[in-house]
Formats: sequence, C-alpha cells, structure tokens
Amino acid sequence: MNFSQYFPVWDKLTESERNALVSSAVNRSFRKGEIIHRNSDECTGFLLIRSGQIRAYTTSPDGKEVTLYRLLEQDVCLFSASCMISSVSFDISLSAEKDSEITIIPADVYKKLMNTSAPLANFTNELMASRFSDVMWLIEKIMWQSFDKRLASFLLEESNLESSLTLRITHESIGNHLGSPREVVTRMLRYFSDEGLVSLSRGAITICDAAKLAAVSQ
Amino acid sequence: MNFSQYFPVWDKLTESERNALVSSAVNRSFRKGEIIHRNSDECTGFLLIRSGQIRAYTTSPDGKEVTLYRLLEQDVCLFSASCMISSVSFDISLSAEKDSEITIIPADVYKKLMNTSAPLANFTNELMASRFSDVMWLIEKIMWQSFDKRLASFLLEESNLESSLTLRITHESIGNHLGSPREVVTRMLRYFSDEGLVSLSRGAITICDAAKLAAVSQ
Repeated sequence: MNFSQYFPVWDKLTESERNALVSSAVNRSFRKGEIIHRNSDECTGFLLIRSGQIRAYTTSPDGKEVTLYRLLEQDVCLFSASCMISSVSFDISLSAEKDSEITIIPADVYKKLMNTSAPLANFTNELMASRFSDVMWLIEKIMWQSFDKRLASFLLEESNLESSLTLRITHESIGNHLGSPREVVTRMLRYFSDEGLVSLSRGAITICDAAKLAAVSQ
Repeated sequence: MNFSQYFPVWDKLTESERNALVSSAVNRSFRKGEIIHRNSDECTGFLLIRSGQIRAYTTSPDGKEVTLYRLLEQDVCLFSASCMISSVSFDISLSAEKDSEITIIPADVYKKLMNTSAPLANFTNELMASRFSDVMWLIEKIMWQSFDKRLASFLLEESNLESSLTLRITHESIGNHLGSPREVVTRMLRYFSDEGLVSLSRGAITICDAAKLAAVSQ
C-alpha cells in the first residue's frame, strides 16, 4: 500500500513521522451495509479507503437520515477521528455501501503528529475544507432546489456510481439519502415514470431517458 | 489591542511570527448594513472582530439568502481569507449587522505563517471545525425542524442579541436569514400573533410571551 497516494504531503513528513503512520495502521474489511462509525462518541480513527464505497450521513433525534457525502477509493476520512479536533460538535455516521477495504490510523497517533507537523496540520485543514465544501453544496441543494431536481440528480449520481441504468434501491433508502419521507419519494418517482423518465418495478428503478432526467436535474 | 485574546496559541508562536501578524494588521470600521466580504473571489483577509456584529450568509443564483452563522466581539473569521485554503469551493458573504470595528490580517501573511507553524495551522483547523459545526447545526434545523420552530428560535435569538423584546426587523429580512419567502414568514408571524406570542406593528415585532415562544421553539 502506497501511503503517498493518500497523503499529498508525504514527502514533507520526516522519516519518523512516516514510520509512525505506517506502523500504527491497521487493515480492516467491512461488508456492504455494515456501520463503520457511529457518531462522534466513538473515535474510530483516520480512514484511508483502499476499495469500496462509504456513505457519510447525519441522523435526526427520531432516526431520520440525510446523506452528507460519499467516500470512494483513494479518499480519506477525517470525521471518524473527529475526537482529535475539539471544536467538532456534530455527529457523523459512516456505513459501507459496498464491500470495503479500509486502512485505519488511530486518532491519537494522527493527532500527536498533527500537533507538531505543520504540513500534516495543513493537509488536515484542506481535508476539512473539502468536506465543508461538500456540506455547503448540500445546503445549497436543500435550500434552493426543488425536490424533483434533487431526486433526478440523485438517480443520475447513483447510476454513475453503479455504472448501470438499473438501480436496486428502495424508495425508503432514497428517502434516507435525501432526508425526505418515503411517500414523497414514491410520489415523485411515479410522476417521473408517467413522464417516461424512469420505469419502476419491484425493488428496482430503471432510467429510461437519461437526457430528459438530466434536464430535470438542472 | 490584545492579539492573544483572539489567538489562544499566541504563546506558542515565535517572536517573529507574532510580529508578522501584528505589523501587517489593519484596522477598519464598517457601518451597519455594509458588505464586508462578497464571495470567495475576493480575499479580504483574516478578520478579528473588535466590536459589532457580523452576519455570514450564502446566496442562491437568483439572490435568495440564508444566514449561516453570526460573528460577535472576540470572534475571528477565517472564510474571508478562504483563498488561502485551496479546497474551499463555496462562497460566503459577510455583512455588518451593527456598526463594527474589525482588524484585518492580510491572507498572504497569515497563509505564509500557517504553512510553517503547526500551532497556527492547528488553530486554523479548530476555527474551521467550529464553523463547520455551526453549519451542521443549520442543516439539522433545516432538515428536521418545522418552520414554526425555526422562526420561534430566530425571534428569541434576535431578542437576545438586541437585548430587547421589540425587534425592528422586516419580514423580508427574516426570510433572508431563514432562507424562506417573505409570504411564509408573514403567515407564520400572523399565526404567532393570533396565539398571543408576539404583537405586530409597522416595522416591528414585539415578543409578548417569551416562555410560550420558547416552548414552540423546542
């Protein structure tokens, strides 16, 4: 495994800093559907995604969910080690959306290095800014986009991630991604189906007219 | 002016780092209503709020607004210098909600120090995490709270910031804080008025029953 692919500042770290990261790292596998990290009371560690797909989401007090962002191969996850940044006062959960191979660096090891290494601290800053940007993009979508646009975008993104026009996903699961009740998802999917954008069958949604769906999403 | 009040890591900086911050700092005054920073194409600099009240907000393509957070005396603002963090891909605007006295540290000076100072980079990290937490709190409110709760919370917060039960604020301006159309604000205020929570007059909203309003907000 090549750590420098995950840490663009790798050649600015000292030999002993690199050794500390490499020697503390642990490999783990997660099955599709498994929870990797739940809320900030756990401090799972700093994650390097070797393969798979991870969903980062937040949960309401009564269990509703909304997807914040996805992590794919080559991505790193900071918020599973959010205990090392004391001003983080929100909870993020992570689940595996596909079978995933992950390397975990313990939060205390990472924090100790970050405290004295300006390159690592600045890299962490860029990471956080990048997730912050994802979340700001989400706010803009929630605030200014109507639900038909958001659903159309979501279906196209999913199709892209799965490299397939047929999505095996329940209406409830889509509701959990978008933070909307299942009924609202079902109603809009039926409307899309009437318009010939998708076709619906038990447990699957097939995109029939991607160009028209893209037009709705914009 | 005491820089160590703004920088908890002040005593971890070297003499020359401290001098660079102090000697580059410029004092400026902004009138109530003035725009301090518009979007990320400007790089206004790192702001230390000496007095006043600043509103950070984001704007939709067609000019709608939603308040992200407020900055008060003793706060510092990172995103007016977001040009120094390349992964920031969102726009934040800042306006003075009260007459404000601000000290500005140029972004290039701050960035140069942050690149080599682990304490300053870690402080910047904590700052970003703190704003990230504000924005996550906003997402949770937008996603899971009904509009009556959000409006009741907003009126109580305003009353607290102004130390007054009478708020001189237009329905349109409340809409810009909450990212909602003016008509929706007016309708809910009329409902609050019918319920005896507030009284409405030209250009002002008076909180009549703060306890009941607090109950609505929870």
